[in-house]
Amino acid sequence: MKVGEKYYRSVWFEDSKPGIVHIIDQEQLPFFLKIKELRSVEDVYNAIKKMSVRGAPAIGVTGAFGMYLATQEISTKSNPGEYLKEAADYLISCRPTAVNLSWAVNKVLKELMDAAQKTDWPEIALLTAKEICENEVTNCKMIGINGLALIEDISIKKSGEPVNILTHCNAGWLACVDYGTALAPVFEAHKKGIPLHIWVDETRPRNQGSLLTTWELGNCGIPFSLVTDNAGGHLMQKGLVDIVLVGSDRTTRTGDVANKIGTYLKALAASANNVPFYVALPSSSIDLSVSDGLLEIEVEERDPEEVNYVSGFADNKITSVRICPENTKSVNFSFDITPARLITGLITEKGIIRAEEEEILNMFSES
Amino acid sequence: MKVGEKYYRSVWFEDSKPGIVHIIDQEQLPFFLKIKELRSVEDVYNAIKKMSVRGAPAIGVTGAFGMYLATQEISTKSNPGEYLKEAADYLISCRPTAVNLSWAVNKVLKELMDAAQKTDWPEIALLTAKEICENEVTNCKMIGINGLALIEDISIKKSGEPVNILTHCNAGWLACVDYGTALAPVFEAHKKGIPLHIWVDETRPRNQGSLLTTWELGNCGIPFSLVTDNAGGHLMQKGLVDIVLVGSDRTTRTGDVANKIGTYLKALAASANNVPFYVALPSSSIDLSVSDGLLEIEVEERDPEEVNYVSGFADNKITSVRICPENTKSVNFSFDITPARLITGLITEKGIIRAEEEEILNMFSES
Repeated sequence: MKVGEKYYRSVWFEDSKPGIVHIIDQEQLPFFLKIKELRSVEDVYNAIKKMSVRGAPAIGVTGAFGMYLATQEISTKSNPGEYLKEAADYLISCRPTAVNLSWAVNKVLKELMDAAQKTDWPEIALLTAKEICENEVTNCKMIGINGLALIEDISIKKSGEPVNILTHCNAGWLACVDYGTALAPVFEAHKKGIPLHIWVDETRPRNQGSLLTTWELGNCGIPFSLVTDNAGGHLMQKGLVDIVLVGSDRTTRTGDVANKIGTYLKALAASANNVPFYVALPSSSIDLSVSDGLLEIEVEERDPEEVNYVSGFADNKITSVRICPENTKSVNFSFDITPARLITGLITEKGIIRAEEEEILNMFSES
Repeated sequence: MKVGEKYYRSVWFEDSKPGIVHIIDQEQLPFFLKIKELRSVEDVYNAIKKMSVRGAPAIGVTGAFGMYLATQEISTKSNPGEYLKEAADYLISCRPTAVNLSWAVNKVLKELMDAAQKTDWPEIALLTAKEICENEVTNCKMIGINGLALIEDISIKKSGEPVNILTHCNAGWLACVDYGTALAPVFEAHKKGIPLHIWVDETRPRNQGSLLTTWELGNCGIPFSLVTDNAGGHLMQKGLVDIVLVGSDRTTRTGDVANKIGTYLKALAASANNVPFYVALPSSSIDLSVSDGLLEIEVEERDPEEVNYVSGFADNKITSVRICPENTKSVNFSFDITPARLITGLITEKGIIRAEEEEILNMFSES
């Protein structure tokens, strides 16, 4: 996507700079647009762990490139094949909930293990990572095109009045290399000239909504209002939301969705107020091995300090303030599970389907 | 309640200091415990508006004392009776959602208008405000005693394992002069030695949970964990909440409850997961003139900057950080309406009743 006149992806590789993976440092946005260079598996691990790069598709792609960096590190290892497996495990351990990370890392690892010659490893890893990356971009583009129809329909019913879309967290291009998942249909609709207004959930504790989604929408000139995470229920009760669009970190074969903590509360409110609730996701976030999201998906618990402190801008720098008494005990669950029954539909690169096992398997069981 | 060894109320009058109403400045907590002296109607208005004093019962009491301060200001007014009415309107206009404010202010005004002699006004105003204040304290104490039974029952069923209580915002003694509403049963249960664990919702945008509820619970040594507002659904899905206790800013004759924004989302999650959801309230927050909370209660919209900035502690002072791009448009609804159907029961000073018109009228139609 463009920032000003310049085209960016949130993760990329430049052939002229081997051994380096580039990311936009999402910890600095929207206050500073800075590029971070990742030069080792350790760099990739830390960038994903600290959320310099985040979003299910983006961490999958970054993890895949991390495996390429692992192939640059084997010369000093006594057992290179073992090292690659360890590197894969290490990268996957970084964040447990989004399935894209393990999916992408394992995909590269498999190609490497299947390779005829070890000398081909760097090239194979790089090609596979690039392919994963390009596929994610294409899939997100298709999600945008497929989801557009939903927004167009509402716009027609509202006779061109702005379509009010609520979104939680950031499922935009930063989260997905390019285009986004939940925001992809929004960008498409805006390009088509459909009047829109986006309700942006702040998304505590890391505030991806207030920091990143606002920034993405603002860059494109799409009208939006920032609200606290508490506000969505009231907005839906008052008829101020036409559709909810969110992303997914893992989607089960039965259509349950693990997504940013708080998604489930919005799904409950949407269901109670007859607001369509759609989840946009590329097939890389579908985990056919899981049937019951609530019982089987590991919900990441992150550092409690993310709850106790809020990061923002003051005195021309990024500053953290403590919002509770000293030594407050807090708990920081990062995701929740939205059961399929609360989901109106899944917007995928192949089309819109119901969040039901039969439809999911029909469309994705071979992928 | 005690802070260390010293007993405090959140609002009080000292006979030795006529013309002054004292409040704990809730904008400074938990970082500084400071007392603020209010010496005029204007002071009272500003303290309530800026939320130096907040909580439905506490602003009612402060408003009542504000009418006493109004009687101190009449000597310079050409039409003293008119001035009192204007002062009442002015104070009531300050925050529209909590009915306690208009209820208490109007109660003092009525006593003044009914007075035989204007020279009695200061004394009548002061006596009435004190009476309202003492009644609120007694009512909150009774809410604690009545609500205790619910916690005791759960504790017995859990064979003494800690009772997990989720609460939203601050409905503790700071919000209510003393004891609290939602927290009153918690304090009672703790005094009885019942093992407890409180899930404290942060409560954006003003963070009354992370700033005030944590401070109150910590002062009493009651175990708690701070969580983001997004977390409650996940906690309830996982069976980590035994009961939800919240306060009310206005309760309709049909049992709908206006309370801090986000309460409705927790009520939906409680209902979906069979978690009992109780609202604790003194009769001063019941508005028998309202039948449909969603249609009839005015939901206050506060300064959007409360969404765009987060206040906390850094470098030994209270600091505000911006959590979004510059000039972000945001919307700040302060309350939402929880429909009666989602409420298991109302804990009042007279006992626990269902959130139904018949029970509410039976108990409160004469008050």
